[in-house]
Amino acid sequence: MKVIELKESVTASNEADAERLRAKMKQEGVLLVNVMSSPGSGKTTLLSALIRDSRETKLKIGVLEADIASDVDAAAVEKLGARSIQAHTDGMCHMDAGMTARALEEMGTKDLDVIFLENVGNLICPAEFDTGSGLNLMILSVPEGDDKPLKYPLMFETSDALVITKTDAMPYFDFDAKRCAERVRKLNPDIRIFPVSAVTGDGMPELEHWLAAKISDWQTGASPAKR
Amino acid sequence: MKVIELKESVTASNEADAERLRAKMKQEGVLLVNVMSSPGSGKTTLLSALIRDSRETKLKIGVLEADIASDVDAAAVEKLGARSIQAHTDGMCHMDAGMTARALEEMGTKDLDVIFLENVGNLICPAEFDTGSGLNLMILSVPEGDDKPLKYPLMFETSDALVITKTDAMPYFDFDAKRCAERVRKLNPDIRIFPVSAVTGDGMPELEHWLAAKISDWQTGASPAKR
Repeated sequence: MKVIELKESVTASNEADAERLRAKMKQEGVLLVNVMSSPGSGKTTLLSALIRDSRETKLKIGVLEADIASDVDAAAVEKLGARSIQAHTDGMCHMDAGMTARALEEMGTKDLDVIFLENVGNLICPAEFDTGSGLNLMILSVPEGDDKPLKYPLMFETSDALVITKTDAMPYFDFDAKRCAERVRKLNPDIRIFPVSAVTGDGMPELEHWLAAKISDWQTGASPAKR
Repeated sequence: MKVIELKESVTASNEADAERLRAKMKQEGVLLVNVMSSPGSGKTTLLSALIRDSRETKLKIGVLEADIASDVDAAAVEKLGARSIQAHTDGMCHMDAGMTARALEEMGTKDLDVIFLENVGNLICPAEFDTGSGLNLMILSVPEGDDKPLKYPLMFETSDALVITKTDAMPYFDFDAKRCAERVRKLNPDIRIFPVSAVTGDGMPELEHWLAAKISDWQTGASPAKR
């Protein structure tokens, strides 16, 4: 498995880097999905479920794992057969567009439908940096609690979809899904919300159906190249 | 409840600010404990349990809540009778020593034994900034998984103690406590590890006993004012 050591991009503008990467991905017909969440919310488990299901969904998936240290996540998704690369961020709390572009170049993007960038586990800093993605997905796990939209508003505002994971643990935690959705929609009325359990498979078909439609839009040019 | 709006400190040296605050707290006999963790790991729930138990432990507790937005945490601990203040960090992902000193001045530190600074929920950035605390406590909740020491090593290295929370949820998650402890001790051989459940109360007496000893050391001068 490939590991790439990155450093913060020293460029004139992260926005310009992001637009350049987005245009390149659009031209190649590959949707880059920036996946953001707290540490331990289940990003890798969700991606593993999407990869396993790709035998049926027929999606060709690549994964760019970004972490400060270790390569356990990339090893996990590679074992499932997905093309993957592990990026180390040199202690940085987020990925920028230049870092993302370098890692994707190293991994190779050809013949893929979708690439998931598993951003550094952090509910704050990644929301401030455009990575060049075509779609922003955030994950909130049930054990984290339904008050997170109150405390980390920017992350909810910048995401196209919220995946609520570990719903199988709902009986053991004080998580009010309705209250959570209200808080989220107050920040971002257009956000899509998908409650899922990667363990039981509940909610996965709805998420996969939506993702497939987004990928198809991206490839046929029906959606504008914006974040 | 008091809410203070902070901005990043513009000073020559965060280290100097931290040493100054530590010396002041030492002189007053108040132990400042910097509590760090991911979002939703149970910091406020743990502090609430410590406050409730203070009827028996006789500790006079103050709480400085640091968040990007909202005041739900300070409201929760104030309802339990603890002196508290809510600090907003102007979008910042961590507290620095100058911000901490300003918030403590606003709250008042007199007649307290211990003040818990509930840092911004983030497993990366807070570990890089000395807040002027006499003790660093980190929390890892069972649902986050036992691989976190591999991915966020600095946080584990800079902490005096690790509190593993939500142990009551152990049956529902794949969390290997022994493997976690091995990974943590490889980074920080001297760290103390306390598995607790604030819901059932399991492990709380051991943590409280250790904290009381640390406070007593701090007040009698037996421990050096370092961090």
